[in-house]
Amino acid sequence: MTERKPPRGRDRANPRSQSRNAAARRPSPGAGEAGIWLYGVHAVRAALANPRRRCLRLLATAEAEKRTFPAPPDGEESQKPGIPTPAMETVTRERIDQLLPAGAVHQGLALLAEPLPQPAIQELLAPGHPPGGGAEQSGRRVAGSGRRVVVVLDQVTDPQNAGAVLRSAAAFGAAALITTRRHAPAESGTLAKAASGALEHVPYVQIGNLARALDALKSAGFWCLGLSGDAESSLAAADPGGPLVLVLGAEGTGLRRLTREACDVMARLPTRGPIDALNVSNAAAVALYELLGRGEA
Amino acid sequence: MTERKPPRGRDRANPRSQSRNAAARRPSPGAGEAGIWLYGVHAVRAALANPRRRCLRLLATAEAEKRTFPAPPDGEESQKPGIPTPAMETVTRERIDQLLPAGAVHQGLALLAEPLPQPAIQELLAPGHPPGGGAEQSGRRVAGSGRRVVVVLDQVTDPQNAGAVLRSAAAFGAAALITTRRHAPAESGTLAKAASGALEHVPYVQIGNLARALDALKSAGFWCLGLSGDAESSLAAADPGGPLVLVLGAEGTGLRRLTREACDVMARLPTRGPIDALNVSNAAAVALYELLGRGEA
Repeated sequence: MTERKPPRGRDRANPRSQSRNAAARRPSPGAGEAGIWLYGVHAVRAALANPRRRCLRLLATAEAEKRTFPAPPDGEESQKPGIPTPAMETVTRERIDQLLPAGAVHQGLALLAEPLPQPAIQELLAPGHPPGGGAEQSGRRVAGSGRRVVVVLDQVTDPQNAGAVLRSAAAFGAAALITTRRHAPAESGTLAKAASGALEHVPYVQIGNLARALDALKSAGFWCLGLSGDAESSLAAADPGGPLVLVLGAEGTGLRRLTREACDVMARLPTRGPIDALNVSNAAAVALYELLGRGEA
Repeated sequence: MTERKPPRGRDRANPRSQSRNAAARRPSPGAGEAGIWLYGVHAVRAALANPRRRCLRLLATAEAEKRTFPAPPDGEESQKPGIPTPAMETVTRERIDQLLPAGAVHQGLALLAEPLPQPAIQELLAPGHPPGGGAEQSGRRVAGSGRRVVVVLDQVTDPQNAGAVLRSAAAFGAAALITTRRHAPAESGTLAKAASGALEHVPYVQIGNLARALDALKSAGFWCLGLSGDAESSLAAADPGGPLVLVLGAEGTGLRRLTREACDVMARLPTRGPIDALNVSNAAAVALYELLGRGEA
């Protein structure tokens, strides 16, 4: 995928322009400086392996370093070629605690990184997206083979929920997760931790106007399906096949009126009372299974 | 459902034996005393409405009181008949903060309650369980109509995950959630909050020996199906129909060897790399949809 607005010029996407020395030359950013702290084994490993992710500082406890980055066999490079990695700083667990939100389960690993560049909606519409869709993996058929499904969250504010949706989007092969810039979590360590590495694989796109984005997707041939507990049709019955935008709202309030009006069809999951709604990330996982996973079983 | 071991004699289940005065006469338990603090609107409301839940103290901010318990129309009782409720204590938000774990989203409501009585495995096996299975709701068919599915979590230690699984179990009509007493979360405010009221509807059963419990379920005609990413069959293909135990393990480690050996069949969800596993609560929701929800759509 190419980038729309490289914040530091076109060569931002070229790993060769970022040497290890470039990272070493930067003044060490403190907790208040630009960048976000990612943490946890899966999130940090995936970020380090992502050539589009600009990594600034890598902090690890001695134990986490040994566990996460075991020494490579003699004569082999430990880093993937072309991906610059900041030098590891060995620190105490308490030092990492200080940099992160209280209670963050960091597993002894923290990575200061720049937020990922935001792709334009148009890039998501290009045929061939998601990259790798339909590929065989480990010799067996996998989910998401070819069908393009984009997930939209309408004012879901909890980063753990948004991160868990990203993780399911990656697991079932959805093309992107779109949220609004306001009333939705920015890219953060909490979101990345809940996404368990998926933030590096599924574009997390924050846009200004959701109705306009849905219009663009509809113009490009996507069917727009909103989930709501009060809809008549079940998701399985309402799914028309083909490119689809799956729209989910916040628990309790659901979709906003304008978002609902922008949907071609509303559908419900077959849940029952007395508890009438799933957690939003569970609802997304179930819907993505129905749309992308089930046919591949 | 009847109770196996009422901790205070048979009349524990008889609401008439618990007057509001009885609650008022009790010495006010402090934070360290017996009972668990439940919090959040859905969890507290569901606990107050559950005749099997013994409620000790109810704390609310003035705002939460107005929002959660609006004054009933003239001449109507605000409480459900037969369910004793402790007198509401109006307190500050900060007072509730002090009683709960840091960061608990309590929405101005906290309820001190005794843990629910634990049903025996044998009760879960009785025909007609879950209560209400197969009922029509709001004039349309709902999930879980009649099929008995029990969820087992093998050493999933996070109370938020266990609570979210309870919520999905209620939404799709599963009969119970079984965990081990060790290496699994006890009934707590965090678990109840994530369950969003479902803890009052789906039995959360903690047992000493998981292999023995699986044997009892298999003897009663349940098929035992374990989820694992490395299984050959998909869940949809492996599901034999009929009474079923769905067994999920912790993320990363999966099912223990003995648990795996106790399963009649292993199955996988059709997820794809590079992120190869769903969050355990999302995996449970997807599986319950396949087993209980999909046929009802």
